[in-house]
Amino acid sequence: MPYRYIDDSRFIHEFAPGLTPIAELKPGERATVRTLDCYCNAIRKAGDDWLEKRRHVPGPNPATGPIAIQGAQPGDALAVHILDIRPDAQGAMNVRAGVGALGQYIEGCETQVFAISDGYVDFFGRRLPAAPMIGVIGVATAAENGAISTETPHMHGGNMDDRFITAGSTVYLPVSQPGAQLALGDVHALMGDGEVAICGLECAAEVDICCEVIPGRAERWPVVRDAQGRYRVNCSADTLDKAAQLARGALLEFLERRLHGMTRNQIAMLMSLAGDLEIAQIVDPLVTCRMGVRPEALPGLEF
Amino acid sequence: MPYRYIDDSRFIHEFAPGLTPIAELKPGERATVRTLDCYCNAIRKAGDDWLEKRRHVPGPNPATGPIAIQGAQPGDALAVHILDIRPDAQGAMNVRAGVGALGQYIEGCETQVFAISDGYVDFFGRRLPAAPMIGVIGVATAAENGAISTETPHMHGGNMDDRFITAGSTVYLPVSQPGAQLALGDVHALMGDGEVAICGLECAAEVDICCEVIPGRAERWPVVRDAQGRYRVNCSADTLDKAAQLARGALLEFLERRLHGMTRNQIAMLMSLAGDLEIAQIVDPLVTCRMGVRPEALPGLEF
Repeated sequence: MPYRYIDDSRFIHEFAPGLTPIAELKPGERATVRTLDCYCNAIRKAGDDWLEKRRHVPGPNPATGPIAIQGAQPGDALAVHILDIRPDAQGAMNVRAGVGALGQYIEGCETQVFAISDGYVDFFGRRLPAAPMIGVIGVATAAENGAISTETPHMHGGNMDDRFITAGSTVYLPVSQPGAQLALGDVHALMGDGEVAICGLECAAEVDICCEVIPGRAERWPVVRDAQGRYRVNCSADTLDKAAQLARGALLEFLERRLHGMTRNQIAMLMSLAGDLEIAQIVDPLVTCRMGVRPEALPGLEF
Repeated sequence: MPYRYIDDSRFIHEFAPGLTPIAELKPGERATVRTLDCYCNAIRKAGDDWLEKRRHVPGPNPATGPIAIQGAQPGDALAVHILDIRPDAQGAMNVRAGVGALGQYIEGCETQVFAISDGYVDFFGRRLPAAPMIGVIGVATAAENGAISTETPHMHGGNMDDRFITAGSTVYLPVSQPGAQLALGDVHALMGDGEVAICGLECAAEVDICCEVIPGRAERWPVVRDAQGRYRVNCSADTLDKAAQLARGALLEFLERRLHGMTRNQIAMLMSLAGDLEIAQIVDPLVTCRMGVRPEALPGLEF
């Protein structure tokens, strides 16, 4: 069966409780979603003036959608299987003095465009292995959380900038509104944990997805199963210390619901021995930490 | 040539500016260092009462040493090559309500002992792959930093609890005092990033080392080259946000001294694309973040 194709002509800049879908997918239906880059594709070549160009685009981090998923209801988990991510043949970066976590070291405002071919990024003559990932993926928010910009990560997902959201991964999002209302964008051909200079290699892309609804199994925060089978809980807050606290608590509760027969003390010991507390990004309006136990320590664990 | 053997009868509980060595090694000389576990080997079996036993031990985190390294002078970098780490056949963990980053979830005070054999830890019947690492490794402190407990990490190294300090890694420490005065201990057969329940699998061990002095090349903070060739700078502070800020600044400066011909903006972009900002531990008196660029992005980089 051919994939449904959802083009990049309609996108959102905020996740909100009330969203009107542009398309509907059935569970199990495969779709190709075309996404704009975080600059709305306005940067085409090195030296392009982003500060000027951004005055003419609708906003940062456009997320293609919303896409209704048939049958998804509040309290369900929406499993988004990422089948493939195909970035365009080039990506852009813009760094500026005072902006991002290295802002104090940046001079002026610099825009670069790097070619991507055969799985490598040509970075000033260095060959960096590409590792395409999705920066923004989320669903309509809960009423009590209101509208949240696509620049910000929270319980609905959003701008988590988690480099483990790659081809072969699954993103589990808590459904707060009928139809879930999925939207995604902000693909990076490459990004390190932290995204310290405020951007990855920002690319337009095609993303192949297939969704599944797991009735009544919403977790409070997004969970990502990476391509190697590790489950991580992603939590966001205004400081790393708070995000880290949320992530370890959310993981403990996630495991407690699945590891029957283990005590809380035993789960805490397991997390200390084989769980890794990690940083996803530190440059969005809220920062994101994630934590998961290594899959070899938990063979057979399922969402 | 046989390895020098340094037994575990003499150890320190604080790194200080003035330390009297128990042994001296020449650069290039190989030595086996026997280390006590963080509980001074007082926990022998599950259920042992650590709160009672710790009243009879000299203190936590004993570090075997100090070991003078011939010729090391202030301003030099001491490269400690970790040739092998052989934990004893069992390790201990003690968790307590209110203690560590999961303290709110822990009930009572629980001590467990787990067997280690054939590279696996037997964790309540689960087989966890062991990954031996050194928790405490450091040198005499600078006069302005004074004495620092072996529970605390800082510029001299100390209790960094970095799981990448394994066999095959090299730890580069800034020398502040003549002879450097190396001490190490607190081996873990296994520990996850964060060490969230306040302990890894705490083991007595034998550690094989070989030191090298690199004249005049002290970095401000410890640098670890892991067994896969990635260099990471390790920085500690009282919050994750501050430690993360120190780590990214220290890495940028580390790279700037080595990547001639790249601008600061370019190095910042490289760090954002292929550098990972990570958490080592969050349970010591200061917490530790580390950051390094993936080695495939920087082939040939040397300390």
